[in-house]
Amino acid sequence: MKTLRELGERGLIERILRLITPLPSNPLPPWEDASALELHGDLVALLKTDMLIWSTDVPPGMRPRDVGWKTVVMNFSDLAAKGVRPLAFLASLGLPADTQLEVVEELTRGIDEASRHYDAYFLGGDTNEASEITVAGVAFGVGKRERLMRRSGAKPGDILAATGLFGDTAASFKILLEGYEAPGDLRRRLLRAVYHPEARVREGVALAERGVVTASIDSSDGLAMSLHDLSRSSGVGFRVEHLPITEEAMRFAELHGIDPWKLALYGGEEYELIFTVRPENLEEARETLREVGCSLIEIGVATRDRRLIYIDGGMEKSIGGGWEHFKSRPPPAPQAA
Amino acid sequence: MKTLRELGERGLIERILRLITPLPSNPLPPWEDASALELHGDLVALLKTDMLIWSTDVPPGMRPRDVGWKTVVMNFSDLAAKGVRPLAFLASLGLPADTQLEVVEELTRGIDEASRHYDAYFLGGDTNEASEITVAGVAFGVGKRERLMRRSGAKPGDILAATGLFGDTAASFKILLEGYEAPGDLRRRLLRAVYHPEARVREGVALAERGVVTASIDSSDGLAMSLHDLSRSSGVGFRVEHLPITEEAMRFAELHGIDPWKLALYGGEEYELIFTVRPENLEEARETLREVGCSLIEIGVATRDRRLIYIDGGMEKSIGGGWEHFKSRPPPAPQAA
Repeated sequence: MKTLRELGERGLIERILRLITPLPSNPLPPWEDASALELHGDLVALLKTDMLIWSTDVPPGMRPRDVGWKTVVMNFSDLAAKGVRPLAFLASLGLPADTQLEVVEELTRGIDEASRHYDAYFLGGDTNEASEITVAGVAFGVGKRERLMRRSGAKPGDILAATGLFGDTAASFKILLEGYEAPGDLRRRLLRAVYHPEARVREGVALAERGVVTASIDSSDGLAMSLHDLSRSSGVGFRVEHLPITEEAMRFAELHGIDPWKLALYGGEEYELIFTVRPENLEEARETLREVGCSLIEIGVATRDRRLIYIDGGMEKSIGGGWEHFKSRPPPAPQAA
Repeated sequence: MKTLRELGERGLIERILRLITPLPSNPLPPWEDASALELHGDLVALLKTDMLIWSTDVPPGMRPRDVGWKTVVMNFSDLAAKGVRPLAFLASLGLPADTQLEVVEELTRGIDEASRHYDAYFLGGDTNEASEITVAGVAFGVGKRERLMRRSGAKPGDILAATGLFGDTAASFKILLEGYEAPGDLRRRLLRAVYHPEARVREGVALAERGVVTASIDSSDGLAMSLHDLSRSSGVGFRVEHLPITEEAMRFAELHGIDPWKLALYGGEEYELIFTVRPENLEEARETLREVGCSLIEIGVATRDRRLIYIDGGMEKSIGGGWEHFKSRPPPAPQAA
């Protein structure tokens, strides 16, 4: 009998999907960022639920208010990746009986704050007794069926692009979990990506309205894993030609002699959108993002050859899978000095 | 600094609600069975999320497939109490890495089975690593704003009614957690209420369509607590005149010399609808339920006097609060023989 550790999260999801009665005329296929359901005319409801678990998902130094904020971001980001504006957020809270009231109040403030920040409302939810703090978030939004951005539409020759750069969270986890050091200012700027991430809601909605995107996913599982998912759904490969790393993560990599590609590819809990556009639509996509205050980052190109590679100093290198729940283990905690 | 144990679940919810930015023109006020949001014309989206946690919510002997089934029932029941048909279910699963694949497959089968049983679809969700099995469910449905059954409309003189009788779960918890005994056949029939509950979806939808209900709630927190909630929202009291207990729970009470009122009032995880109707509409409500194969159970009457009482052998007795998360503690486990 197999355990989840042997199977890994991807294997588990495959097994689960085999057991589910498929929704007839599903606006979004399984293995997508969010679930969809036809509502009325061309309107579809978009739903997403994702859980934050204290022992696994909350790094040292993160305040309860930030935890509430992040639970909203991680759910809204998936709607944004489909081009749909979130309207509402709900949360089921699992709480130990000895939790301080103030912790729950701060969690609530963070959830309400983030919901309003993205022009949505926190509609409440439910409280339950649990052995550790668990926040199961729900995002709800309404979009137009023909405007949904799916994972599946990338074609060979399409430009691979993103709404931002990567590496901050991978560097932060090295600081928080492996004891790496960074000067105060750099450390603060890196950690902000972990403690107070942003979802690309306006960006996703603007791209969907213009209809210039052929495939889209959010980068919450890291750039590498997200490219694997886009590749699998679209039946294309990707050739990453430009190292999409933030200035801060690059400085951190140089400081510690770490391969910057590793930071950019194998992070996670980043909430950029990764998408493809046809070359003739690239300038329109760039302009669309500029109008909402965001720079389009060109990363590479979709290929007929289904391999995932990146070009490092003229050399082709293969892109691995990255972090996976159940299978991957966090690095050992740093030894006390 | 207060902990949740000192505050109790009701106190906690009050504190949380103070911190939430209210939705303008909310179709359902806070402190309701589910959350609502205007969609299009007179259509409203109904959303509910509730979490099942293995250590707190899964009694001995319950199979993973039943756990999946129950997670759907407990979320769909809240939509049913508002008169709205659930269309979709989602689940966020928290799972330890050493969980057997078969356990998750059975959970999934139970969720899919229950979703289809109520004519809805399981749209998927998310998997996460956790220290114990946690299933956060999400129910989604669409209803008409003017047809929603709220907690707040009961008026003095309204008849208090339910879609069924109570006591099976209270008796079952005495068997499962306190070591009480019951003959094989009685035991099986009592435990079925815990292991394989039903949500009153057709009943709630039918009552809402006829517009005969003045207030409604589901009984998942037990009859007593649900009456407290109805009372608080409607500003009325209730006088329970007829002991609404199942034949099985009555037999169990007689067998052990337990006060049957205690079993009927202070259970929980029962999914009957408790509702009020004006006396002139009682027969129409009864007929409406009969058409979907359900008997209307008359329990008592709503009163101007806000007290909650029941009539036991001609004596007025006060209805207490019942089980409350964080505050209430389960009875000690039975001693080994």
